[in-house]
Amino acid sequence: MQPTSRVPITRVSGEAASRDEDVLAVEEPLEIRIGEKPVSVTLRTPGEDFELAAGFLFSESILHAADEIESIRHWGSPNVVRVQLRDGVKLDLQRLQRHFYSTSSCGVCGKTSIDALRVQTAPVQSDLRMHAAKIIAMPELLRAQQTSFDATGAIHGAAIFDADGNILRAREDVGRHNAVDKVIGSFFLESATPLAQHALVVSGRLSFEIVQKTIVAGIPILAAVGAPSTLAVELAHEFGVTLIGFVRGERFNVYTSAERIVSG
Amino acid sequence: MQPTSRVPITRVSGEAASRDEDVLAVEEPLEIRIGEKPVSVTLRTPGEDFELAAGFLFSESILHAADEIESIRHWGSPNVVRVQLRDGVKLDLQRLQRHFYSTSSCGVCGKTSIDALRVQTAPVQSDLRMHAAKIIAMPELLRAQQTSFDATGAIHGAAIFDADGNILRAREDVGRHNAVDKVIGSFFLESATPLAQHALVVSGRLSFEIVQKTIVAGIPILAAVGAPSTLAVELAHEFGVTLIGFVRGERFNVYTSAERIVSG
Repeated sequence: MQPTSRVPITRVSGEAASRDEDVLAVEEPLEIRIGEKPVSVTLRTPGEDFELAAGFLFSESILHAADEIESIRHWGSPNVVRVQLRDGVKLDLQRLQRHFYSTSSCGVCGKTSIDALRVQTAPVQSDLRMHAAKIIAMPELLRAQQTSFDATGAIHGAAIFDADGNILRAREDVGRHNAVDKVIGSFFLESATPLAQHALVVSGRLSFEIVQKTIVAGIPILAAVGAPSTLAVELAHEFGVTLIGFVRGERFNVYTSAERIVSG
Repeated sequence: MQPTSRVPITRVSGEAASRDEDVLAVEEPLEIRIGEKPVSVTLRTPGEDFELAAGFLFSESILHAADEIESIRHWGSPNVVRVQLRDGVKLDLQRLQRHFYSTSSCGVCGKTSIDALRVQTAPVQSDLRMHAAKIIAMPELLRAQQTSFDATGAIHGAAIFDADGNILRAREDVGRHNAVDKVIGSFFLESATPLAQHALVVSGRLSFEIVQKTIVAGIPILAAVGAPSTLAVELAHEFGVTLIGFVRGERFNVYTSAERIVSG
């Protein structure tokens, strides 16, 4: 399946209307199963489905190492991925439950918001330092690899950079979280996490969940073209992530752990 | 709780770094309960929580009329809303189940994607016609009411317009879906749905789920500054919604049911 698709449209310009075509980002549901058990349905752009499934299960702290996985394959449909675990791998079913509030109270939403939703994990440990000029350059390097964005103007990007500001890998998806899961999942499947000498750059805004995925992957620097939310800043502060927003032109804002950024 | 919050930042411009402040959109979790039963947790911007809860339950076809609700109130925390139903109101627990894939297969993801996720509802019935000039004007009218966007540059907006292109009500949220749930929920609570002579305008992209909410509310025209996904177009086509994207300057694209737009 292609990540983009052509559709007929009526193009209106002022008072004139004409028939034309437009290229859209493809959006299809993906059901992720562990063995027989469905654990998530997400609306995603087809492509890199195995990376998406692995990245989702890793960033939700359901899986912890690639060698827990026996196989990943499509299962009776291009919109179902089945992750088969090796014999003896124990799942934290309690954690699975946490994501699906149908059967019991989440039990924490009445407490502080950080307590409510954070994944139980350690703070990010990294001595990485990056020069401001590298940060400024990263969004444009991501943008240059977003082939589907060029066609549609409507797809999110996420990329992993090394300590020298080189782009290592980029992924695209209609869903912000999915683009992050795909790129992190690709490293997870190669047993290359934690990414302690790396930066994650995303095209959109910085929500709580993007920061959560960054922490689980052990990434010390997270930068975006858009703005963070308050909860994103709180979580990044508590777990030692350098959170950077509004990377535009020669400027950006550092919300937490600014000591990793070298300027002047 | 305020929808925006000030935080200290390090502002980097070229080689210079300085301490400053930034205004962020507040993001906090909200647990929605029906009676004792938690049915959803969403990350939202606090404010209009009751509209959000009602709009979510309505647009997911769990509730169908405002008079099914006995009361809505916060419950032990500003981040928990409890919706109490009137005696005798039956919930479609099967439908609730559909949203939480923990206990059984979604059972449909192996079929076509439209079958998989659409809410079972009737096509939108409306003889509404709108002039192209009204469509062109709507995003700017929404933008003018987005007070939190002005402060943060990072919050989604959704607004309901009447047939003459007047803005009736606008809502903001860090989550695209939440902004739509809030504005639709506000009309639902007044028993003013279906909104058959109205248009919904959103600030971002058009995903499957935004179209689904539009259909349930009976709204014939959905317009956005951003692009639709393929699945959004398929669903709008099937249910008779006029789907409009890329409303920018004097131009826009009509993807489905273009007969409702009068131009020339």
